[in-house]
Amino acid sequence: MSNCPAEIGMTLDQIQTPALIVDLAAMEENIAILAKRVAENKAGVRLMPHAKTHKCVEIAQLQIAAGAKGVCCQNVAEAEAMVAGGIKRVLLSNEIVGADKSERLARLARSASIAVCVDHESQVDMLSAAATSQSSTLDVLVEIDVGAGRCGVPPGERAVALAKYVASKSGLRFAGLQAYHGPAQHFRKPEERTAAITKAAQLTRDTVALFKAAGLACEVIAGAGTGSFENELASGVYNELQCGSYVFMDVDYGRNQTDKPFANALFILTTVISAAAPGRAVCDAGLKASSVDSGLPAVHGRPAVVYAKISDEHGTLEISGEGRVTVGDRLKLIPGHCDPTVNLHDWLIACRDGKVEAVWKVARGW
Amino acid sequence: MSNCPAEIGMTLDQIQTPALIVDLAAMEENIAILAKRVAENKAGVRLMPHAKTHKCVEIAQLQIAAGAKGVCCQNVAEAEAMVAGGIKRVLLSNEIVGADKSERLARLARSASIAVCVDHESQVDMLSAAATSQSSTLDVLVEIDVGAGRCGVPPGERAVALAKYVASKSGLRFAGLQAYHGPAQHFRKPEERTAAITKAAQLTRDTVALFKAAGLACEVIAGAGTGSFENELASGVYNELQCGSYVFMDVDYGRNQTDKPFANALFILTTVISAAAPGRAVCDAGLKASSVDSGLPAVHGRPAVVYAKISDEHGTLEISGEGRVTVGDRLKLIPGHCDPTVNLHDWLIACRDGKVEAVWKVARGW
Repeated sequence: MSNCPAEIGMTLDQIQTPALIVDLAAMEENIAILAKRVAENKAGVRLMPHAKTHKCVEIAQLQIAAGAKGVCCQNVAEAEAMVAGGIKRVLLSNEIVGADKSERLARLARSASIAVCVDHESQVDMLSAAATSQSSTLDVLVEIDVGAGRCGVPPGERAVALAKYVASKSGLRFAGLQAYHGPAQHFRKPEERTAAITKAAQLTRDTVALFKAAGLACEVIAGAGTGSFENELASGVYNELQCGSYVFMDVDYGRNQTDKPFANALFILTTVISAAAPGRAVCDAGLKASSVDSGLPAVHGRPAVVYAKISDEHGTLEISGEGRVTVGDRLKLIPGHCDPTVNLHDWLIACRDGKVEAVWKVARGW
Repeated sequence: MSNCPAEIGMTLDQIQTPALIVDLAAMEENIAILAKRVAENKAGVRLMPHAKTHKCVEIAQLQIAAGAKGVCCQNVAEAEAMVAGGIKRVLLSNEIVGADKSERLARLARSASIAVCVDHESQVDMLSAAATSQSSTLDVLVEIDVGAGRCGVPPGERAVALAKYVASKSGLRFAGLQAYHGPAQHFRKPEERTAAITKAAQLTRDTVALFKAAGLACEVIAGAGTGSFENELASGVYNELQCGSYVFMDVDYGRNQTDKPFANALFILTTVISAAAPGRAVCDAGLKASSVDSGLPAVHGRPAVVYAKISDEHGTLEISGEGRVTVGDRLKLIPGHCDPTVNLHDWLIACRDGKVEAVWKVARGW
């Protein structure tokens, strides 16, 4: 396979670096833990894991085999990859704009259940035109801003008016609300996350009541992420969870205070290429292998070695005390932020007991 | 072409977003300005532009047509793409480790002049074994640390000893010194850059004298970048310049104080997908379209619109005063850092007078 850094059966030492490796045992446990937690809930809340984290059909299939009802995607190319891989239900959990993208999405709705969010009439017009031209039906969620400060109309009457507009258009079916609070995922203290989602849930609940009064049924009330899902699960109003990062975890999510952390299952395998000065070494995983929007990667299992600086193709390591690093050593790095790090790579190398069990393509691009 | 966001002849409005667009007129002027500056110098200093910025054979060919002697690369996959595209001289401007990568590099040396850096005997051993097995010859530069604090042996006798080791090995030819000062490129004040490179040049000059005394000729003395090249050009010791970012520029290099700035030639084309709250809008270029290691992208030509926050697939824009942004508007963003932003994309869309003139593949991966 073109430019793939590994082949099935290789040991970790044989993989070309830098490479993104998945610890299958840890990932499977993460998938099982969340699936069990969601299955236990008596309110019938469903799991729609976010595929923007892994961009990988095979992982989506494992999540669905464990009980997920489908997946969320964040762009049309991800949705195309998931449907091509046999996933039957996809929520594109934000707005898309443009005739071409709307057409591509409406085409997918001929062979899978596709939902998408809106917060403006012009998006609705484009989606309706595309679905009509493709003879398909798109489910549409009205996105409300419950505190994230990004997309979404304000909760309340504006949302009802937009939903009525959706319901009036051919090719579209009004399906419910998207009410995701992104920043709350990364609030460090559980009480901060609880406070934010309690408020988001109340805004959502009030809006659902307005919809009911207007004769509009909200079949789907979607939101939640790895940081806050316990709160949405307990809210009594959300019925679809969109957790993504739980499958891999990263340094940033590791900073959240929680008594039930998921395990790190994603690592950047890197080789030390230089160790010319005492207390310093350089590895071959830099900005083109690891996203740093949420901070530098962490070195796994080597407490004396700190990833201290990053440049295009290099990481500069500081080695303290008893630490010894020599040219050719291999290290495992935990990414600062898993989603954009996966997007830097074309392949995920799935490993178990130190051996490559599978190589999986990453659905990059738009 | 698979997943390419544009076709030749399209207008900017027709390109799928997000996309990376090159302003050909601006880029050609940047290439011409540096080529002229290097051609004027009486000391015979050569230009070897760094291809890690663009990862694009067609741009390398334009640089060579303007007088460059070859290109620098930062990893083996870039070097492979350049040689496959007909580039005859490549310097891999850092160390590589591993039998497989060494073999790939030695294979390239059968059809092009290939140089690579070392700072440890174990790298030399691997390169020698690979060149011998491929029946090729690799040029080797000893890297010295002239203040960057990353790779490189200390200037002085340690460098001489390593060069002697290189010269003793079959398949390798000792070719000179790599003496690049990375951090100096981004020192904001000209006097700070001058001070750093004056010191680096003195360390290099002293080391060259030791080499001469030991009977070793340093054919190549390489270094410099977009921020500092005037200093290396004036030094009397450097004879190869490795400027990369000058071809595109970015927000970070724009912060350097200089009286002769290069023009911005690289832009992320993005569409506004949401404008649901007053003073705020959201565009479709986020972390997967723009690297933020050197800060957020800047909005080009729209002073009332500021790119204020970034997430996976979104940028949140703040709109002040008279600014008006509506769903479907298109914006051009200047990347914070050009090199890792190019690496997020598979295609460069080359435009002139608002039309697509060419689409160029980006040589991603390792």
